[in-house]
Amino acid sequence: METRQWTLASRPTGEPTAENFELRTVELDDPGHGEVLLRTLYQSVDPYMRGRMRDAESYAEPWDVGDPMRAGVVAEVVESEHPRFEQGDVVQGESLYWAEHAVADGDDLRHVNPELAPVSTALGTLGMPGVTAYYGLTDVGEPSPGDTVVVSAAAGAVGNVVGQVAKLAGCRVVGIAGADEKLAWLTDELGFDAAINYKTEDVHARLREETDGIDVYYDNVGGPVTDAVWDLLNVRCRVVVCGQIAQYNATEMPTGPRKLAKLIETRGTVEGVLVRDYDPEQWREAIERLAGWIRAGKLDYRENVVEGFENAPDAFLGLFEGVNIGKQLVKVAEPKYDD
Amino acid sequence: METRQWTLASRPTGEPTAENFELRTVELDDPGHGEVLLRTLYQSVDPYMRGRMRDAESYAEPWDVGDPMRAGVVAEVVESEHPRFEQGDVVQGESLYWAEHAVADGDDLRHVNPELAPVSTALGTLGMPGVTAYYGLTDVGEPSPGDTVVVSAAAGAVGNVVGQVAKLAGCRVVGIAGADEKLAWLTDELGFDAAINYKTEDVHARLREETDGIDVYYDNVGGPVTDAVWDLLNVRCRVVVCGQIAQYNATEMPTGPRKLAKLIETRGTVEGVLVRDYDPEQWREAIERLAGWIRAGKLDYRENVVEGFENAPDAFLGLFEGVNIGKQLVKVAEPKYDD
Repeated sequence: METRQWTLASRPTGEPTAENFELRTVELDDPGHGEVLLRTLYQSVDPYMRGRMRDAESYAEPWDVGDPMRAGVVAEVVESEHPRFEQGDVVQGESLYWAEHAVADGDDLRHVNPELAPVSTALGTLGMPGVTAYYGLTDVGEPSPGDTVVVSAAAGAVGNVVGQVAKLAGCRVVGIAGADEKLAWLTDELGFDAAINYKTEDVHARLREETDGIDVYYDNVGGPVTDAVWDLLNVRCRVVVCGQIAQYNATEMPTGPRKLAKLIETRGTVEGVLVRDYDPEQWREAIERLAGWIRAGKLDYRENVVEGFENAPDAFLGLFEGVNIGKQLVKVAEPKYDD
Repeated sequence: METRQWTLASRPTGEPTAENFELRTVELDDPGHGEVLLRTLYQSVDPYMRGRMRDAESYAEPWDVGDPMRAGVVAEVVESEHPRFEQGDVVQGESLYWAEHAVADGDDLRHVNPELAPVSTALGTLGMPGVTAYYGLTDVGEPSPGDTVVVSAAAGAVGNVVGQVAKLAGCRVVGIAGADEKLAWLTDELGFDAAINYKTEDVHARLREETDGIDVYYDNVGGPVTDAVWDLLNVRCRVVVCGQIAQYNATEMPTGPRKLAKLIETRGTVEGVLVRDYDPEQWREAIERLAGWIRAGKLDYRENVVEGFENAPDAFLGLFEGVNIGKQLVKVAEPKYDD
């Protein structure tokens, strides 16, 4: 059968544009032994994809020009040659494609339970961003009750979960985001203790007002926001480096780390986190906890859904404009085999 | 009795100068209960002292203008009102004075065993710099056999011990220093696998030649040398932040940390170390091990001794010129009660 795919037409220089993407129609092979044919319901767009479009190896290989863009996808099984899956199952895969249909190795997929929460959450709070937030905060950030936790890109897919789980852990939580509507969501609906608009406020001065120093800084952005946080780190602080979106579009390499003397003063730790280091059992554990909190009304989520597969590049480009609140998704199709 | 003391005459702006120090003669009280009267044999000068001369709190209070400069000292007990000490004992204290004589609380002093090694080593390899190197490397850096360890300011009092202990731990060791005479000491006498002159060589290019990436970076300097190391950090790297001498004389604050994305790629850790976090029992343990290695001929040390109390400021200023190899000391007097 045929499918439409978005491919990497060219590598971006600086900010990505629509010209970096090309929509193609390709022929799919029938699923072989152990494979499944999938119909995409929701496709994720994430800031990390900017890194894969670059011609430089980071924690993963760069994507090749001409190849289909990859993404986390929630899909319906159309045809299965894998014993764990049958037609109509809803599944999730992290390294699928910006495509309407795809053939995938069943071993790379996990079942999504539609009774837990809407299946789209398998790409957000109950998926990679949620699991990243959960382990980045709990395993690397090690929050204790009474700690002050600051999170940047706090209204993003990872940041909002970090802040909410930190509240569940008994911390004081301050979020940094770039729009007053986002701040209102954080403080009025999610229970953050304070929120700061980095576009209109002096982040350093406001953090001084709102905190007695910072025990855990969960960094999704890097750049000047991180600079503003740095001097307020407490003794034995933990800085969790999860994303550096401020620098993903940089064409010139920013200077290396300076002001590390703050870490001698504080004996603080700065540590990177990457969710793929956690095994499937750990993913299941995190998702169960997060889902339990959603059911109990203790964890809220928000999705920004763009309708239509043709609009996937726009949804991705929007990530760098800082306009979305919560998880950015593309809705590709309605389930067909729904009961 | 009277003693001469060096006091902080003024706070330096940028590089310290001789004008920041003033030699005074003051009257000492007799030692009270629990105190001892000391005669300085050796006085230490260390880069961290630059931080104390600044009018800003870091991990310790700044020193006041007009007060005596503080230092690690090896001294002889002249008179003791403390049960643990008697006349003729050689002792060491971390927070004594740039002074020929001093009255100190006996509880702040430790005995120095002259049979272990020359007593001056109690300020270097068998003292604060050695213990810092030992715990910074083993506790924070966590070297495994086969790891590649890079150390900056490698010919300094801390750096040379770091490299030698890393060799004992089965690591490949590359040192970075600023003079060919230093490099020769590191590779020809201390057994470093390679050494790089940051003043005349391209550090990044040379590290690429000499290593397959870096597992442990022990950072004594910060600034451009650290930038050159950064892109070569391996997965699960540990960066030990021990000193940032490149920035101690900075009058403008350097930019905050950039390029933290490297830590996502590597899931690396950057952590500060401060030797005063280790308790007296841990100090004893480290010193015993280091002394054992010296006796076994496995650990070498070198001291750069300036003769004469009047020359203490010059010895300190020399630290920022990068001329000394090994531990910088001031020899103030010969022992009087020597057997």
